[in-house]
Amino acid sequence: MIFWVNGELREDTSAIAINDRGFLLGDGIFETFYVENGLACEVTEHLDRLYQGLNILDIACSYSKQELAEAIQSCLKRNKLEIGSLRLTVSRGIGPRGLLPPTNCQNTVLITCVAGSIKRNEFPPISLTISRIRRNETSPTSRFKTIGGYLDNVLALKEAKDAGFDDAILLNTKGHIACTSSANIFLNIEDIWYTPQKEDGILSGIYRGIAIKKLKVDKQIILERSLSLSDLEKAGKVLISNSLIGLRKVYSVNITKN
Amino acid sequence: MIFWVNGELREDTSAIAINDRGFLLGDGIFETFYVENGLACEVTEHLDRLYQGLNILDIACSYSKQELAEAIQSCLKRNKLEIGSLRLTVSRGIGPRGLLPPTNCQNTVLITCVAGSIKRNEFPPISLTISRIRRNETSPTSRFKTIGGYLDNVLALKEAKDAGFDDAILLNTKGHIACTSSANIFLNIEDIWYTPQKEDGILSGIYRGIAIKKLKVDKQIILERSLSLSDLEKAGKVLISNSLIGLRKVYSVNITKN
Repeated sequence: MIFWVNGELREDTSAIAINDRGFLLGDGIFETFYVENGLACEVTEHLDRLYQGLNILDIACSYSKQELAEAIQSCLKRNKLEIGSLRLTVSRGIGPRGLLPPTNCQNTVLITCVAGSIKRNEFPPISLTISRIRRNETSPTSRFKTIGGYLDNVLALKEAKDAGFDDAILLNTKGHIACTSSANIFLNIEDIWYTPQKEDGILSGIYRGIAIKKLKVDKQIILERSLSLSDLEKAGKVLISNSLIGLRKVYSVNITKN
Repeated sequence: MIFWVNGELREDTSAIAINDRGFLLGDGIFETFYVENGLACEVTEHLDRLYQGLNILDIACSYSKQELAEAIQSCLKRNKLEIGSLRLTVSRGIGPRGLLPPTNCQNTVLITCVAGSIKRNEFPPISLTISRIRRNETSPTSRFKTIGGYLDNVLALKEAKDAGFDDAILLNTKGHIACTSSANIFLNIEDIWYTPQKEDGILSGIYRGIAIKKLKVDKQIILERSLSLSDLEKAGKVLISNSLIGLRKVYSVNITKN
């Protein structure tokens, strides 16, 4: 696999410094793009969200959105990737010992891609359980794809898989439904669709936005609000979404466990 | 600086792979050791806690505690470090795309060290404020030095510094006092010392343990329990502790802000 790092297309994988704050402190942000027909999808939306997250973390990106969009396409082209996913990671970069970010830090910008076999909206239904780990809506890491913020998701997913489920729903610290380890969630209760509001510590998913628009075009009602476990119990249909899977059905939710 | 990575002493800093889960997902654990007279302190205690954390994350370390202790000393010796700090990081290692940890993953084990100038227990007093970010005591990342778990601490520290304070206190999701961005906390109220109990989402600090023992030897009363902001308001003295600073006085706490 050929990857793009700090302006260069390379093949030697040891490209991250031992004192990169992404590796040391999870101090960075990423975006995952769906790739079809050799092109990254929703590039503008992903780059806008990336920049919003970088702004919250006070990381000044070394590359413009235009430069990143070009780098994304050059990486896909060199890898001859037709269908799959691409990840763009921006870590704060190399810093001295300690938590405090240095004032002038050279970011590490990394683009990698990998072939996939399933087109979005064609993934099979899955089962969900409820994670013991709560989503921390008080942290900016809950609203962006931060490197550090994903460890809780890794642990929630692992816990669910170990218990025989495909993924886990994370509630936030108030007990409201937030998301799964890597997807937004939609409940259908008496012919109305509901999805957690952004204030509940969710990623403002790119495909969440697409799904909301699609449902409205189909003349369905979709409301963004806080949702509880009892809403989940009442739901006749449950869907999850992210950029790679599109919309995906949930065939069972194990609510009794928690 | 000469560092130790996966069994080798090296100087070329680009030693971390682009697909290392530590860099991609904050998926790893670290320990920071205080170094004095060319020796790492409390090595057994730190390695015990490291292994506990690795166990929670289900990461099987490629090296025994004895091997790590030897690697730590070889790294200090080669760097001729007399006083300072040493960091041991174990990431889950290289994995394929996606959150789920692969079953057989070769860890990345990294040891770096850096010279310091202040001995522990000699750091000047600091000011604290209260962070808007809550400590998520529902997550295992709150009880160990995980890579991912530190991003919230980075953001809390940065927020405090930007507001003119030296560090921030993080409350947990129940509103109980947890810790600062990198230290445990002790309050003295009417001649009794209090420190947050472990269930409140704190790191079981090595120096926290030392400080508790010291206070007991000095015939002082020290209790571990949940502490509130009103306890903090009542406190006549506030101390913080970690392995590098030892015990450090707090000269002011800005409670009104939150």
